[in-house]
Amino acid sequence: MENEPLLMLPGPVPMPERVRYAMARQAINHRGAEFGRIYADCVRVLRSAFGTSHDLFVLSGSGTAAMEAAVANFGKGKKIACLVNGKFSERLLKIAQRYGDAVPVASPWGTPLDLRGLAKALEGGAGMVTMVHNETSVGLKNPAADVGRLCQKHDALFVMDGITSIGGDVVEADSWGVDVAVVGSQKCLAAPAGLSAVSVSSRAWEELVTPAPYYLDLAAYRKSAGNTPMETPYTPAVPLFLALREACLILEEEGLPARVARHVRMASSVRAAAAAWGLPLFPKVDGMHAYSNTATAITVPDGVADADLRSRIRRLGIEVAGGQDQLKGKIFRIGTMGAISAPEILATLAAVQCTLTALGHRPAGDGVAAAYEVLAG
Amino acid sequence: MENEPLLMLPGPVPMPERVRYAMARQAINHRGAEFGRIYADCVRVLRSAFGTSHDLFVLSGSGTAAMEAAVANFGKGKKIACLVNGKFSERLLKIAQRYGDAVPVASPWGTPLDLRGLAKALEGGAGMVTMVHNETSVGLKNPAADVGRLCQKHDALFVMDGITSIGGDVVEADSWGVDVAVVGSQKCLAAPAGLSAVSVSSRAWEELVTPAPYYLDLAAYRKSAGNTPMETPYTPAVPLFLALREACLILEEEGLPARVARHVRMASSVRAAAAAWGLPLFPKVDGMHAYSNTATAITVPDGVADADLRSRIRRLGIEVAGGQDQLKGKIFRIGTMGAISAPEILATLAAVQCTLTALGHRPAGDGVAAAYEVLAG
Repeated sequence: MENEPLLMLPGPVPMPERVRYAMARQAINHRGAEFGRIYADCVRVLRSAFGTSHDLFVLSGSGTAAMEAAVANFGKGKKIACLVNGKFSERLLKIAQRYGDAVPVASPWGTPLDLRGLAKALEGGAGMVTMVHNETSVGLKNPAADVGRLCQKHDALFVMDGITSIGGDVVEADSWGVDVAVVGSQKCLAAPAGLSAVSVSSRAWEELVTPAPYYLDLAAYRKSAGNTPMETPYTPAVPLFLALREACLILEEEGLPARVARHVRMASSVRAAAAAWGLPLFPKVDGMHAYSNTATAITVPDGVADADLRSRIRRLGIEVAGGQDQLKGKIFRIGTMGAISAPEILATLAAVQCTLTALGHRPAGDGVAAAYEVLAG
Repeated sequence: MENEPLLMLPGPVPMPERVRYAMARQAINHRGAEFGRIYADCVRVLRSAFGTSHDLFVLSGSGTAAMEAAVANFGKGKKIACLVNGKFSERLLKIAQRYGDAVPVASPWGTPLDLRGLAKALEGGAGMVTMVHNETSVGLKNPAADVGRLCQKHDALFVMDGITSIGGDVVEADSWGVDVAVVGSQKCLAAPAGLSAVSVSSRAWEELVTPAPYYLDLAAYRKSAGNTPMETPYTPAVPLFLALREACLILEEEGLPARVARHVRMASSVRAAAAAWGLPLFPKVDGMHAYSNTATAITVPDGVADADLRSRIRRLGIEVAGGQDQLKGKIFRIGTMGAISAPEILATLAAVQCTLTALGHRPAGDGVAAAYEVLAG
């Protein structure tokens, strides 16, 4: 009997046992006092991970639902400048197109954001800006504080997808000037997939446009969150709340700085391995942009078929991700999120290194040893 | 140490242990073959419970999300006749108001639907009709087949909320002429809250209006369900799918006719108890309408405060529901759904009967004995 595959993906990610077993409870009444306390625990911890003192709600839907809630409630009818440099920012552009006059401010996938283009769009009257903080599709971290400054200068609402950064990397939504930030449950929070959370600044509330889609109506969420006991407007996904609460308590126990340091150390070790192998990282970074600390995108070497590489690794019980859409076959991606640390990283890097060799590619050097130096350092 | 409270509510309902523990698994990749098989298992069993051979999708959102998907994808811009005789049909009216020219066809809560008014609305050009099959807010089952016939006669789409009937009572969506039917996971299916399923007839597909809200875009669900492996367009709530699959397998094992018979027997026994107590059932039924087999609404007797009644019962570890909105304090409701049978019914009825007596109300007769006759029958 083998274990479940080790998911070294940019989500979903391995969950602690405490989180998983929290779901096995019998059904509870979601209009009762206990559910209210569970929801309140989630909000308390998530506020600290978002770096916000604003309103914060947990939605029973994926990060996509929360991003749509952000755009639909506060961007409808607006000119929306959508910063695009990867798959998830493209999805956000598609959402914005359903609600407003969406203006793509695009640069090639994996390259720095076009901040000059953004300034132009803001001068042209954009009232909302959307950005993906951590683009796992390309392994790039975008400069949220800089985008926030531009938005504030032009009095535009700043919507930030922090789905794969919040809870795993430094996020300071309030001091960066983020009006609406979003996280997904199944990424750095190491909870199961199916929930998302969204924070809303008072400036955003002033620009509330009604009616939003009924299921994503944040004014309804605000009203229900104000009830005693605290509740959600529609039936919540109760087992997922139980799991998220447990994941939040674990985050509090680990401590946010230690959690961030663990993610940085894990991603640094993967980057050290890639450097030792002589395999370039896919994204182009500059002084403002940085490599993601939760997903590393590595170029597939010439002569190796990505599908072979990943299927052989999968046979060992480890799943790493391929490239998406235009990057299919060109990159592979290693997630460094969730209930993992040195053992999982070492196993994954050893599997990649040996598989590359087995497929006839000779890595330039010993990536596993290079990662060990970082992890043990 | 006491058990969790016994939830005798019109949802959420007690879940079998197998369903709950299915969620404790480690995360799996929702783009992989195993998830595709899990999703396919759900669709196979749900189709039989819906009585449909149409497309069927599972959404990671509550029944409200699925109802909104129905209205948004197929009713946008239409004249929508909304049959209202309880709380959930009122909610459906509110959803319809966000997307179309919603015409309420209302009768007082708990009384038969106004089918003459519906005919008039259809003659007036309504292109969609919404109906709640089983109104748990008032304990009434509405005549779906009759409404379906009227819709077909006028070539209008028929959207049926089967959230609390599908999987627990007889539903024949195709033969009743239902174009879009919806179920929630935490009701008769005895799975956890957080998922819903929606079926779509080919006639409905012909009237697809784009764009729907992104998260509820059923064309995207259709496309992803056609992939190999079968998948969802956005990250699904994986643990809830694992639980729903287990709940569906249990439904197959019990057999749909036996499942329905169990619900009928349970609800009949509660009605027999109410009759013995001399407490009128709240809804007014006629030859077309019937008492709900999944939730029974009983009038609170004069001299008894509903809040006292339910809080005393809660202290015994049993939760029954009160009335909602305009019915607060006037009725109490006993759900007969989920992983329950005679023991839970007898415990609940004994608790109600003794509490009524303790509160100074003398029931006309022995409701527990009357229920026993039905259950043991």
